[in-house]
Amino acid sequence: MSDAGSTPAARTTIRVRYAETDQMGIAHHAEYFAWFEVGRTELLRAHGLTYRDLEQRGVHFPVIGAEARFLRPAYYDDVIEVRTEVASLTGARIAFLYEIHRDGTGGPLATGRTEHAAVDAQGRPRRLPAHVRSRLM
Amino acid sequence: MSDAGSTPAARTTIRVRYAETDQMGIAHHAEYFAWFEVGRTELLRAHGLTYRDLEQRGVHFPVIGAEARFLRPAYYDDVIEVRTEVASLTGARIAFLYEIHRDGTGGPLATGRTEHAAVDAQGRPRRLPAHVRSRLM
Amino acid sequence: MSDAGSTPAARTTIRVRYAETDQMGIAHHAEYFAWFEVGRTELLRAHGLTYRDLEQRGVHFPVIGAEARFLRPAYYDDVIEVRTEVASLTGARIAFLYEIHRDGTGGPLATGRTEHAAVDAQGRPRRLPAHVRSRLM
Amino acid sequence: MSDAGSTPAARTTIRVRYAETDQMGIAHHAEYFAWFEVGRTELLRAHGLTYRDLEQRGVHFPVIGAEARFLRPAYYDDVIEVRTEVASLTGARIAFLYEIHRDGTGGPLATGRTEHAAVDAQGRPRRLPAHVRSRLM
Repeated sequence: MSDAGSTPAARTTIRVRYAETDQMGIAHHAEYFAWFEVGRTELLRAHGLTYRDLEQRGVHFPVIGAEARFLRPAYYDDVIEVRTEVASLTGARIAFLYEIHRDGTGGPLATGRTEHAAVDAQGRPRRLPAHVRSRLM
Repeated sequence: MSDAGSTPAARTTIRVRYAETDQMGIAHHAEYFAWFEVGRTELLRAHGLTYRDLEQRGVHFPVIGAEARFLRPAYYDDVIEVRTEVASLTGARIAFLYEIHRDGTGGPLATGRTEHAAVDAQGRPRRLPAHVRSRLM
Repeated sequence: MSDAGSTPAARTTIRVRYAETDQMGIAHHAEYFAWFEVGRTELLRAHGLTYRDLEQRGVHFPVIGAEARFLRPAYYDDVIEVRTEVASLTGARIAFLYEIHRDGTGGPLATGRTEHAAVDAQGRPRRLPAHVRSRLM
Repeated sequence: MSDAGSTPAARTTIRVRYAETDQMGIAHHAEYFAWFEVGRTELLRAHGLTYRDLEQRGVHFPVIGAEARFLRPAYYDDVIEVRTEVASLTGARIAFLYEIHRDGTGGPLATGRTEHAAVDAQGRPRRLPAHVRSRLM
């Protein structure tokens, strides 16, 4: 992730739930995408934006691309840290980078990236509002 | 479940997904409530109703109560049958009963019941439309 | 829930995730059972027990019954409190009661109950270990 | 996807569940990874392999990388087709490609790729068994 202090970023912790495990005894890979989503909700909040409010004003960020690398498993009851940062921001697109860390483990458990299009309540492309852009750049 | 042939009922099959298992090596109990939901979608369809259409016309059935008994575990890749029937139907309430079966296993893996209130698009109580009532009684 | 201070109980907070919502715009009812599970994990921890350790020692608590009443919807980004207490404890069974609360809302959003059998790593019934019983009574 | 008839491939259909939707009114993006998983289970079955059996013999395929592009939304009650093919196969790695289609919609709703390492029951890297390799090449 970026070393630049000026890149909008946030950290939040999550405890792995039993329901998130699978029969391999590890957190199921699909759950990481829900954790990334928690990460970007908290990044927005840390920068004065709540995604709930944005949606109520007709600004939605549906995911148009998502990817992850799973390097080490996460286990039930692990406390993990989701580190999120803005990867890029254009007029109508925003992308985030993620790392999942666990205290005492060297290096991330997983890394990821999601890309989003800004759309209105009817799903039509729209520009990101100026106040959103200014807070995330 | 009822022996009465006149009770609206339906059967549908589901194959247990890997993502539905937990580290105990069995299907996680919360998944059964999603399977029950599949069961009632199919019961409605079998009686000429699609829940998707009902919602688009402003008829929603949020769950106001749910319960299940888990008698035998379901495993990854099991083909299970969800048997659903209407338990009761009043002006603004509907309840369903469920059994989860697996070929070759005597007796159900699980039984359940859900209760629903009819509400409009704004979440206000409303009466079930006459054509819904007539098809489900 | 019980007013008796001596009943083992715990409170934990959860923020509702976007992935937990459904197209009715509320948290999906099946998610409450995952939240209850978080509640009992934290109740055990608050009483010196970690369910992860118990499982590693061959003590599992599969859910044999679960029920919930959904009184008011929970929404994306709501901070909810899961209040959990031990409802009953016998040689090989344990039951928990739950309430989901949200600050500023009078009365619970939901109430629930789960019942569990103690089994060993092979799924055979077993007695609850004495140290588990003593901490939870 | 490949036109080559010799690439191991399979198609399977899924009906989108209510529980899989989110408050944007579409299937949540994380669910696609569970659908991809259904796709590869069925690809293996179509080629004489059951992943359940493989796991019982100590052959696991944890996901080490996953990605998807979401081109058009999927809705509750849609019948979708998951098209899966083997992308690559080496001694200890296997990758799959996916497309999600819906009748009447031109082009896929989503595309994806997952990469897997073969590991034993203890999570140590292992070679894919010869009979697995021969069926999937």
